[in-house]
This record gives sequence, C-alpha cells and structure tokens, in this order.
Amino acid sequence: MPNPTAAILIIGDEILSGRTRDANMYYLAGELAQVGIDLKEVRMVSDDDEAIISTVQALSARYAHVFTSGGIGPTHDDITADCVAAAFDRFIDVRADARALLEAHYTRNGSEINAARLRMARIPEGAVLIDNPVSIAPGFSIENVHVLAGVPAVFKAMVASLLPTLSGGKPLQSQTLRINRGEGEIAGPLAKLAARFDDLSIGSYPFIQNGLFGANIVIRGVDSARIETAMAELAEKFPQ
Amino acid sequence: MPNPTAAILIIGDEILSGRTRDANMYYLAGELAQVGIDLKEVRMVSDDDEAIISTVQALSARYAHVFTSGGIGPTHDDITADCVAAAFDRFIDVRADARALLEAHYTRNGSEINAARLRMARIPEGAVLIDNPVSIAPGFSIENVHVLAGVPAVFKAMVASLLPTLSGGKPLQSQTLRINRGEGEIAGPLAKLAARFDDLSIGSYPFIQNGLFGANIVIRGVDSARIETAMAELAEKFPQ
Repeated sequence: MPNPTAAILIIGDEILSGRTRDANMYYLAGELAQVGIDLKEVRMVSDDDEAIISTVQALSARYAHVFTSGGIGPTHDDITADCVAAAFDRFIDVRADARALLEAHYTRNGSEINAARLRMARIPEGAVLIDNPVSIAPGFSIENVHVLAGVPAVFKAMVASLLPTLSGGKPLQSQTLRINRGEGEIAGPLAKLAARFDDLSIGSYPFIQNGLFGANIVIRGVDSARIETAMAELAEKFPQ
Repeated sequence: MPNPTAAILIIGDEILSGRTRDANMYYLAGELAQVGIDLKEVRMVSDDDEAIISTVQALSARYAHVFTSGGIGPTHDDITADCVAAAFDRFIDVRADARALLEAHYTRNGSEINAARLRMARIPEGAVLIDNPVSIAPGFSIENVHVLAGVPAVFKAMVASLLPTLSGGKPLQSQTLRINRGEGEIAGPLAKLAARFDDLSIGSYPFIQNGLFGANIVIRGVDSARIETAMAELAEKFPQ
C-alpha cells in the first residue's frame, strides 16, 4: 500500500517579505519522512483570507493530510482559524474547552484573559484540539487539516503531540554517495541505474566546493535492501 | 500603481524529503522586496512532470512573474526545462546559442561536451537566456516564467543577471519594534492602529526568549513617512 500523502501550508507575510526564514517546513518534512508520510507539496501564502481559504480547500482535496503553520495567535493578522472554518463551511466561535485551557493558564501566571487572548480559543465546530505544552493555546485538526502555530518552538511541540496520532506508512530510507565529479560525467550511468531501479527514487544534487563541481547522489525508498543493492552498483561505477 | 506580483516555484524531491533545507526562496524573497516586486505565493513540488507543468501554468496565469528554482542540470531527474516548454506548448531542443556557450566552457576546461551535458542546452523556442557566470549552463525566461538553477551559488548569480531586467515598483520599506510583552497584551491597541493605517501592513511576530514572551511588530509599506508616523504612535503606546 502506498504511503499516505501530505502537504504543508505556511501562512504569513513575514515569510513572503523575506524578513523571516521559515524553519517549520524543513523540520516537519524531516519528521514526516521518518513516520512514512510522503510530503508532496508545500505552499506559502500571505495573511490573506481568500488565499488561505482557497489553498486549504485545494490541498485538502488532493492529499491525505494538510499541515498549516502560522496565524493562530491573538492579533488582528491571525486569521487562520477563521479561514479554515470557512474553507469547510463550519461554525466558529470561542469554544468552552479551549477557553478553559487558556483561563487556567493565565490564572496560574497571575495574568488575565482578555478579548485578544480569547481569539486563541476560537475553534471550528467539530475540530479536535492539538495539545500545546509550550504556550497552552491549542492547535486543532478538522477533517484532514491540522492547524499548528508558527512560532518554531510551539510548532515543534504541536507536531510532537499530533504525529503519533496519525498513521503513516513505511519510513523513507535513504543513502547518499558523494561523487567529486561534475554531474555531466555522472549523468549517463546514473540514468541507466535509475531506469533499472525504478522502484527507488534516485536524485542528483550538485554542489560547488572550493571551485570544484561534485554531486551528492541520494537513493531513496522504503526497502533498504534494494537501496543497498543500487548503492553498491553506483559505488562500483564511481570509485572514490 | 500597485507593484507587480510574483510567485516562486521550488522544484525538487530533496527539499520535500527534508534532506535539504531550501535557501533560494528566502534569498529571492529579500531581493524581490528590495526591487518592489510583491511576492505573493511560494510552492514547492517534487520532480514530477505533471506537478511541475500544472503548477507553472497556474502561477503564470495568476502573477506577473514566476521564478523557478531547480531541475535544470544534466541528470535524468532534471526535467524542469522540458516541463516549462510543455506548460506553454513550445517546441524544445538543444539550441545553438546555449550549446555554443557550453562547448566553449568545456573546451576551456580541457573537458568535453557529452549527451548529458547537452541536456543543459535544451531551451524552449522563443525563450531568452539568463546569464550564468558561475557554471555557464544558462537559465531562461519564457513568457513570464524565469527558470533558474537550484544550486544556491548559481541561483544567486542568475538572480543578479535577471533582476535588473525586470521593472519593479516601489521598494517595500519596513520598521520593526520589539515589544517584550505577550501578544495578548499588544493585540487590542495593535488592531486599532492597523485599522487606522490600512494602507500599511502591520504584522505581529511572536517569539519566546528565555521563557518570556514577546513580539516583533513589523510595519511595512512603500511610503516611509507613513511608516514613521505609525511607528511613532506604536512606540508611544508601548514604551520600552
């Protein structure tokens, strides 16, 4: 059975303006590979309700899982929860269970809940909360969309809460061979190898180091014995 | 007149598998902001021809410029040029001008052109070459799609060749105020400020540092005097 598929949606003007370098996509991509969920597509859009709604709908229809990052805080530009509710035509309001989590948290800290903080308790009808041990305000899953925070520490904590509840397939295995020759010399034999091992994904990732060209050849698949066999043939063709 | 819009398309299994952290999107996002081209969307897809063709078509129809990264080398998984040609229904083959560039380069290096390297001279009919001073194999622009290499050093060099030929709008300006309070305390006054300065984009980017919550408030726009005014009001509300 093929592995379940997934997409990531990163939401936020701060990423598109070049101000902030996204870290969450790279982190989650690695985690998904380990649990056997195949990441097929990533999109990044701005804090714009039409863009978020249409992208959530498109990705939700196409992949088994969609993970969103960003836009669930208390400020005016945090519109993700409302957009995801709109994407599935669900009612959204402050929900009692989420509100109780936040009230207990602010009471413990000697602080108070206010209108802005209550925004973080807005949860679409029928959603399941995702635990946030870092800053309490929860994420949520609705249908196949998992709504996570944008702050990297909180994002990671929510991924840790969520991933064990999703059933993945076989973890993706990979082996890499570094070849200190330009891709132009490698490409011919490599294409033949790829054609014979068409159950594996064989990629060539060129680099330039100290003015010299080389490539990392990465062989990926779910069957480690097959990867070993292909890698042995490759290493024989390109002795280092 | 509003600034021209743009999208970036990152192509490659190595990004989606979590093996490699993309650097090109972040770099180009910063460059585009400086020349007044508004980055509206980013997509990342795997080395899959259907995914690349349909994404190029969708982004090309929606934005003034599309920049692609990756998949134009000599190996079997380098399928971007052929996919972009297919997206616009253009003929593609080895083109004489691109071939001449490569032949001169390999002759200078005491090497030879071969079938794999010739793949890098495959250019769709009607495309304009993009200069690559690092490793010579050119990128190209066709319609509003600009096809660039994935290796970061080459990508940057191609961006430097290409960007001055595109006419941008007013550069995006921004100012940031770091506020050492949780977003929940900032959100109310910030929403009011954002409503009054609706020609500016006002974003709140929370962080956690040494266990304390804070937020960077970023005010963006093309009119620096307006940004100054809004920032002065914000600083008055949240004296540090």
